Amino acid sequence: MLKNDLLLKALRREAVDRPPVWMMRQAGRYLPDFRKLKTEHEFFNRVQNPELACEITVMPVKQVGVDAAILFSDILVIPQAMNVEVVMVEGKGPVITNPIRTKKQIEALVTTDMADRLGYVMKAIELTLKELNGSVPLIGFAGAPWTIFCYLIEGGGSKTFDKARQFCFAEPELTHLLLNKITEATIQYLQAKVKAGVHAIQLFDSWAGVLSPDDYETYSLPYNKKIIQALNTSLPVIFFAKDIGFGLENLLDSGATALGLDWTIPPDKARAITQNKITLQGNFDPTKLLASPKFITEEVNKMITAFGTQRYIANLGHGILPNVPVENAIAFVEAVKNYRTT
Amino acid sequence: MLKNDLLLKALRREAVDRPPVWMMRQAGRYLPDFRKLKTEHEFFNRVQNPELACEITVMPVKQVGVDAAILFSDILVIPQAMNVEVVMVEGKGPVITNPIRTKKQIEALVTTDMADRLGYVMKAIELTLKELNGSVPLIGFAGAPWTIFCYLIEGGGSKTFDKARQFCFAEPELTHLLLNKITEATIQYLQAKVKAGVHAIQLFDSWAGVLSPDDYETYSLPYNKKIIQALNTSLPVIFFAKDIGFGLENLLDSGATALGLDWTIPPDKARAITQNKITLQGNFDPTKLLASPKFITEEVNKMITAFGTQRYIANLGHGILPNVPVENAIAFVEAVKNYRTT
Repeated sequence: MLKNDLLLKALRREAVDRPPVWMMRQAGRYLPDFRKLKTEHEFFNRVQNPELACEITVMPVKQVGVDAAILFSDILVIPQAMNVEVVMVEGKGPVITNPIRTKKQIEALVTTDMADRLGYVMKAIELTLKELNGSVPLIGFAGAPWTIFCYLIEGGGSKTFDKARQFCFAEPELTHLLLNKITEATIQYLQAKVKAGVHAIQLFDSWAGVLSPDDYETYSLPYNKKIIQALNTSLPVIFFAKDIGFGLENLLDSGATALGLDWTIPPDKARAITQNKITLQGNFDPTKLLASPKFITEEVNKMITAFGTQRYIANLGHGILPNVPVENAIAFVEAVKNYRTT
Repeated sequence: MLKNDLLLKALRREAVDRPPVWMMRQAGRYLPDFRKLKTEHEFFNRVQNPELACEITVMPVKQVGVDAAILFSDILVIPQAMNVEVVMVEGKGPVITNPIRTKKQIEALVTTDMADRLGYVMKAIELTLKELNGSVPLIGFAGAPWTIFCYLIEGGGSKTFDKARQFCFAEPELTHLLLNKITEATIQYLQAKVKAGVHAIQLFDSWAGVLSPDDYETYSLPYNKKIIQALNTSLPVIFFAKDIGFGLENLLDSGATALGLDWTIPPDKARAITQNKITLQGNFDPTKLLASPKFITEEVNKMITAFGTQRYIANLGHGILPNVPVENAIAFVEAVKNYRTT
């Protein structure tokens, strides 16, 4: 039994007194306690150490007052478990030592025993659930196959993932072969997370926006649907396709319980396109957290008024930035909690 | 008198036998003759030397067969003329040596005598018009104030221009002060280009997509309108707000003769939103030029069928990539020229 089940209520489209609130990337970065840990442990050590992952996951619940925890981890643990070397380079981001170029490389990827290979994640979930002690729900997550594909082909982060798109258009068969393998591994991984006890899953398609809506329907959406369908009878699935733009209407039959939105989609447009059928999550521009608490409160009020308080989860439109003062993150959360329909 | 005035006809919404075609960034990068010049002359030397700029501008007209020339230059010549030091760092892109942080810096910016300060551009236009000898129209361009602002605040390129957005929300008054100064300089600059004889102007708002549609209406659109209104009685203005997404409908009353589109906006949606009132330009995913000429031809046919042949200018959805084979660029142009309604 959860003491605070606002998130799950909003996901089940049940009536709530106020919208639940959490923040993407809330575990880490901007929290001084996290930054202390960061100097002592390298990125993937923090991810792979269940005690540390648990400690980081609960920090924002205690310190910022969010209505849900999201497990501290990384979407690139999947390629790692598939035997792809991924390193985190300070100030640069993730680097794939040998980007995927050939059929042979794709065929060599491991897609079995993901629950065991990522056993440290399951252990972290177990510890976190114990630590949270039913205070708030715990969200598990994975990257969408298209987004993982982007990193594997590009070899790291990019503004536009030109190489990934080029690979699609020049090598469509290899593209689908690789996307299928990532999908297979991801389903196993997320099913293991469900078994470990998470209350909801979020699927992050961070690079949805580099594809045209037509190409998104070819190279991303079918794989996300497959994952969502493998999960959504067990628990709610939030699908966040960043910068999906005009492709939003195609996500309506994705099977997702809720859709995450970035700040480029106006709330009224999102409600109209999704016919008010589905719970929406988002979409505060994260840089607004770098302005004054007064400005943050005003902008949060506008946002909630535009989305409505029901079938809505207050969140950012992308991850919180590392340089946000903790008091501003708290101002965001408090503004949601204090919102009253005027 | 122009021998090929297809572009101007499409801009005037007159009937054409086929759509005109040109490519953003067509002057340079992927052309072997340009790369030869590149080894001998630094970036801003090429821009500032009228003979070189002229030579580069006409290359794609002769070698690829496009229906319009666009003057080889850079949007950052405006901040340079305003006394901001901008350097081009190989492999990194533009760097602003002293990013704008203070009111004092903004007040020190020069906004007068842009025609003289950018006299080398006017000289390049004069030479190019002579060299083109009426074969195709010549397009002049500038960056939108918001996009220039992004570079000035951020200090260079960025995936998301977080610092620029942060500055808006934290310092709205300074933001408008700076945007006004950029607008003032840009209007003088473009009016001088019109006087020098260009046939059309394109305004590039390359970073439109980092703002929510609401914030775009505050921090970008009013300044673009001001520029367009200062020009559109003299000549056609193409307004390209990359990744504008759901903000597209707000551009309808911008005063622009045509709207440029990136590949994330489906042609049918763009036609519906713009009520078929305005000429549209775009929107081929530039990475598709890295696939086979057969694929390029098929995709171009789909694109033209979707937009229709009238009130349409075939183009890419962003600049051509440096690694595109010249024969693929030619395949794109030829596919447009050979398109016949089926």
